[in-house]
Amino acid sequence: MELGPPGGSGPAEPGPRLRGLRGADAAASASSLSRFGAEAGCRASAVAAVLPAGGSGERMGVPTPKQFCPILERPLISYTLQALERVSWIKDIIVAVTRENMETMKGIIQRYQHKRISLVEAGVTRHRSIFNGLKALAEDQPNCRLSKPEVVIIHDAVRPFVEEDVLLKVVTAAQEHGASGAIRPLVSTVISPSADSCLDHSLERARYRASEMPQAFLFDVIYDAYQQCSDYDLEFGTECLHLALKYSHIKAKLVEGSPDLWKVTYKRDLYAAESIIKERISQKVCVVMDTKEDEEHVGHCLEEMLKTELNHVKVTSGQDLQQIILEQCYNFVCVNVMTSDFEETQRLLNMVEESNLSILYPVVVISVHFLDYESVPLGQKMEKVMQIREFAKEAKKRNILLSGLLIYFPQVENNRGLEEQKLRESLRQGTTIISALIKERNSGLIGQLLVA
Amino acid sequence: MELGPPGGSGPAEPGPRLRGLRGADAAASASSLSRFGAEAGCRASAVAAVLPAGGSGERMGVPTPKQFCPILERPLISYTLQALERVSWIKDIIVAVTRENMETMKGIIQRYQHKRISLVEAGVTRHRSIFNGLKALAEDQPNCRLSKPEVVIIHDAVRPFVEEDVLLKVVTAAQEHGASGAIRPLVSTVISPSADSCLDHSLERARYRASEMPQAFLFDVIYDAYQQCSDYDLEFGTECLHLALKYSHIKAKLVEGSPDLWKVTYKRDLYAAESIIKERISQKVCVVMDTKEDEEHVGHCLEEMLKTELNHVKVTSGQDLQQIILEQCYNFVCVNVMTSDFEETQRLLNMVEESNLSILYPVVVISVHFLDYESVPLGQKMEKVMQIREFAKEAKKRNILLSGLLIYFPQVENNRGLEEQKLRESLRQGTTIISALIKERNSGLIGQLLVA
Repeated sequence: MELGPPGGSGPAEPGPRLRGLRGADAAASASSLSRFGAEAGCRASAVAAVLPAGGSGERMGVPTPKQFCPILERPLISYTLQALERVSWIKDIIVAVTRENMETMKGIIQRYQHKRISLVEAGVTRHRSIFNGLKALAEDQPNCRLSKPEVVIIHDAVRPFVEEDVLLKVVTAAQEHGASGAIRPLVSTVISPSADSCLDHSLERARYRASEMPQAFLFDVIYDAYQQCSDYDLEFGTECLHLALKYSHIKAKLVEGSPDLWKVTYKRDLYAAESIIKERISQKVCVVMDTKEDEEHVGHCLEEMLKTELNHVKVTSGQDLQQIILEQCYNFVCVNVMTSDFEETQRLLNMVEESNLSILYPVVVISVHFLDYESVPLGQKMEKVMQIREFAKEAKKRNILLSGLLIYFPQVENNRGLEEQKLRESLRQGTTIISALIKERNSGLIGQLLVA
Repeated sequence: MELGPPGGSGPAEPGPRLRGLRGADAAASASSLSRFGAEAGCRASAVAAVLPAGGSGERMGVPTPKQFCPILERPLISYTLQALERVSWIKDIIVAVTRENMETMKGIIQRYQHKRISLVEAGVTRHRSIFNGLKALAEDQPNCRLSKPEVVIIHDAVRPFVEEDVLLKVVTAAQEHGASGAIRPLVSTVISPSADSCLDHSLERARYRASEMPQAFLFDVIYDAYQQCSDYDLEFGTECLHLALKYSHIKAKLVEGSPDLWKVTYKRDLYAAESIIKERISQKVCVVMDTKEDEEHVGHCLEEMLKTELNHVKVTSGQDLQQIILEQCYNFVCVNVMTSDFEETQRLLNMVEESNLSILYPVVVISVHFLDYESVPLGQKMEKVMQIREFAKEAKKRNILLSGLLIYFPQVENNRGLEEQKLRESLRQGTTIISALIKERNSGLIGQLLVA
């Protein structure tokens, strides 16, 4: 088993150059991973994953198969690949797609720079797709290009929020028991209807569980089961754990999963997934100043206000931008106190662009400017700052959402108390606007100059 | 059975004064309702509904019980009440809430003007809460304030998207069979774990269904079952259909429900519900002009562009505003061609306010102004239009989200072709901005003047 450092447990790693980053959570899971490695005596390249992705998504009520439905303009399956990819000990990821979607899938892999992916052709059912994936890993197949793993994970293309933690649990359990799968409590009571659609009996909810994904198997266990199973199983079955039980006589170990493992099935699930992703990438905001000297200035007041008002959001100073970008911060507030031009914002845009940060998620950049509009005419200042529209159009091409924010900044000193109060009000409103722009991430509002 | 006109099948009726409105869908369901009334020979006040709402929402991972979690600032349970309320043939709605949430619930009923609601105290379990609700309807109880219905609907406070159609189906089936409940296909395979958390067996997914809500019962059937059932049932049971089977020997008729019947259980479900509600109230946009004469003018170009670009959105002219408000349109674009003041916008705001339209949902109003910013200085125009901030603050207090939109409008005639092209680009961008404001409905961006 390869025991490289695990991926960060943040929403994602933005492109391959950041692989191997350790966050606090990642460090925690690294220790259990070492334990896993030591106990299980793993050898190199022991774990692969198979993703059946041949579904038509008819339950979604949309023409696009659900695994290809866009979330923040990126197909759902790319999020799932990203979640598996950042787990460094998963050596190969086999995706089964229909022939007609093969080119689409290749395009996705290229555009979002996915690695360690192999494509196989999907079968007409879920079980047949998985079987095709397993064949690509089995050494007894003539066209086998990959090495046979000790353990194979089976996961769904439409469960994008799988964490390293649960992958580790099912893999460990599979090594011990031969098979393992994630389960969840039932949300609804399960009932058995009679032939005339009347209630025959209901099941006691507490005695049953929903079988979810991921599942993991000793490769030989599940491959043998698929080789033995009947056409009826391949055609109408849905449960890999059942095949392992029926044909390999292995009672799978069941592992409690988190609610986030749910399967994107209906249109509402796409909405939920989008909101979860937006929430996850809105947890960090980096404030960049165009001056480092004056600790008292209004930019720092804004930073303080952001820290106070945006609960649960980590607000950091952009002292070391490279590092902050590496830590997957997708939101930047560029504070321009000294000038009203876009030099600092432009510098930031360039850095974000060069980092590949915006390949996976739209990055929000807000260029903040200050104005005493009781002395300087608002219009005069605005016309200058309105140049932001041109910058924003360019930035959008690289998945960066740029907006401007103008904040009232009193410089005349005749009623200091009142002016400070006004400034605080304005900063608070600016914070509300920044929060809305980060939360919604709506590309329809780029290039606007908002006024607080 | 009272056979008044059914409620509209749009997202909601905005306050009681609009009850009885007929839309196209409502008319369709009215015919089946008449059939239902005729066939079943219903008498007056035959149907009541009981909503257990005593849950603590522990699965949501938030301190507020899920039925009180806000969606667009309104508690979830209010949406469910609204869905039941608009069905005119449901005479009484009994809500079971814990003693500690009684005042909260009273506040919700008052604020959102809910009608026909009675409150009872929730029990410590779901079954005990439902039983308390039934007691309030039973004539054998000393404190019975309501008349005993023929049929009682049991529904969850956290299933806000129940339609009249499925309510009608379960009530009709209950009249015929004694009991009825909505079902859905299983999304996951159901498995039975052994004592050591290993797979014992999995159920064949196609043979089982998820039991959802609403359910309906002849009142005597379910009330008898609750009176007979054991403390164990009341404490650990979850399924009313099971009680009807076990104690009243009634095999419930099962009715296929829509995916929208799902139960808001996890935080992601709140996200999904919010997105669904936002989508539903964004389906109609009304364009109001400050001039009726000139059919050729730029305001009409904008209206045409909105019709072309906003797919699935019904764009109507505000010829008869009263009627449009009655038809539950929550989005208004106020086009000011003749002047750059806010007379027309103010008139619209007043009408929306007087209609009570914004009691249930935030109403979006976009005040559109035009400008040739190559001849008139942008700043000069903007300073005037910036007064919108003050209007917006006032409107927000009444749940109206007001923003401004400035659109480039060339009046100089030296290169007509180029100018028309520019105008079209600007109108298209204006349409994108209008779409974003309507879709997101974010109160953080009110009072802004956006530029297309």
